[in-house]
Amino acid sequence: MMQQIVECVPNFSEGRRQKVIDAIVAAISEVAGAKVLDVKPDADHNRTVVSFVGGPEAVEEAAFQGIAKAAELIDMDAHQGEHPRVGAADVVPFVPIQGVTMDDCVAVAARLGARVGSELDIPVYLYEAAATSPPRRNLADVRRGEYEGLKQEIGFNPAREPDYGPRRMGKAGATIIGARPPLIAFNVYLTTDDVSAAKKIARAVRGSSGGLCYVKALGLSVEGRAQVSMNLTDYRRTPVHHAMEMIRREAARYGVGVASSEIIGLVPQQALLDTALYYLQLDGFSPDQVLESHLTEG
Amino acid sequence: MMQQIVECVPNFSEGRRQKVIDAIVAAISEVAGAKVLDVKPDADHNRTVVSFVGGPEAVEEAAFQGIAKAAELIDMDAHQGEHPRVGAADVVPFVPIQGVTMDDCVAVAARLGARVGSELDIPVYLYEAAATSPPRRNLADVRRGEYEGLKQEIGFNPAREPDYGPRRMGKAGATIIGARPPLIAFNVYLTTDDVSAAKKIARAVRGSSGGLCYVKALGLSVEGRAQVSMNLTDYRRTPVHHAMEMIRREAARYGVGVASSEIIGLVPQQALLDTALYYLQLDGFSPDQVLESHLTEG
Repeated sequence: MMQQIVECVPNFSEGRRQKVIDAIVAAISEVAGAKVLDVKPDADHNRTVVSFVGGPEAVEEAAFQGIAKAAELIDMDAHQGEHPRVGAADVVPFVPIQGVTMDDCVAVAARLGARVGSELDIPVYLYEAAATSPPRRNLADVRRGEYEGLKQEIGFNPAREPDYGPRRMGKAGATIIGARPPLIAFNVYLTTDDVSAAKKIARAVRGSSGGLCYVKALGLSVEGRAQVSMNLTDYRRTPVHHAMEMIRREAARYGVGVASSEIIGLVPQQALLDTALYYLQLDGFSPDQVLESHLTEG
Repeated sequence: MMQQIVECVPNFSEGRRQKVIDAIVAAISEVAGAKVLDVKPDADHNRTVVSFVGGPEAVEEAAFQGIAKAAELIDMDAHQGEHPRVGAADVVPFVPIQGVTMDDCVAVAARLGARVGSELDIPVYLYEAAATSPPRRNLADVRRGEYEGLKQEIGFNPAREPDYGPRRMGKAGATIIGARPPLIAFNVYLTTDDVSAAKKIARAVRGSSGGLCYVKALGLSVEGRAQVSMNLTDYRRTPVHHAMEMIRREAARYGVGVASSEIIGLVPQQALLDTALYYLQLDGFSPDQVLESHLTEG
């Protein structure tokens, strides 16, 4: 059977004190079966994004340990930074990578939320795919007013009732836990230095202006080359090859071509396999046919 | 670091007695770290093809155990079958799958050959990438005369000198051990029932008639549809997408298109990832960017 893999990408409200960051990362990586892939501190935002993976139970436990350590070491009354935030462990999304569904990740988010609420006495809000009502889906809405504003409203405004935990904020603030698809940062370079073509193509391809639903896109000039810079927010619904083919068509409309593309950071293997199947017109292909799918931890 | 995976696809000269087949497969699968993927007995050929994978040491040990069991249970003096063969364990190729080079597989083949020669007293010939001289590269040449013919010549004809083991044949015959790239069985269906188009395209695309070097191809009619049936014998040198694009061009030449394609059996993941990178024009992509590449046995 395919190994089950969940990614977790928690954002902690500390991007300056290296000892605090190290302690949080250590709490995560000490959990057996959890593997830290990346740690990105940002001093201006005073915030650190950690990425780690593992089986559902290991990732849930590691996220709990990270949240507990952050709550112990970060005082939100003393926190300042440019990025909006409501808590020491601010946002904790779970991402299905392999052998797990979005529903599995929603279940992980809910179990963790209950535990953070009861064991750590921290108010928890579930968001995106784990949201318990539509207004809770959008992270920006849940985070409105930030730590200071939520502290005033919680316990008084019924719309701010947490999903788990107390109806009051301690110095660790609140934690927003959820489930979402993996993000792919995909950039396409055009055979032109004309950024206006890139901007027009970006407008055609992005969901917000009527293009492909799960594409965010901007036209940029990067080192003198015109680039369509994209975030693919749900590659199962808007696959990489549909974005690529739409850009190729639109570029031809403006008399230019695609010079090359790049992926920034990590990409789930399935996104690239889907692309191969599409261009090879490979019908009836089963994931079992990938030789490596038969390999377990042996 | 990427997990090291070698595939081994031994052919045993027994395709009828299920107990013998089971005993050989058990000897292989009892080695820790070796995982049997497939067992294909053929009664007409009186021959069974086994496919298993694992790290280099585990696969080498499992191959040895399989050869030893076959030598114990199969008497080549009593063996009859349509397929050419020289020994109980007839051919034992090692295939690099992940995190290992062809040279690593050649080293596995040579170590195993030495051990089979000395511990099992079986003459061993190294072939393909592991061959010790050019006339030994081609399996058909090494197997010429089969068990009966080789038994006469060995020890007398210097061209038949084994690489390891005795210069005489026992009832287990000889074993041919080597290293080769993975095979991909890739079929393309055309938007026509005209098999003559498929035959012309196959001729254009296959290496033997001047096409792509590591492609074997035939034009067939399959359930009323014209099919170009291929074996890709070295996908790193002739990648799947080059075969596909050449077929698309040639099909257009005959006024037809590609309806769909299929892969029969297993395909190394890398072959599909290479295809995705090609069609996305994805420059500077590192295998480290595949999220799953960071997962070890955790």
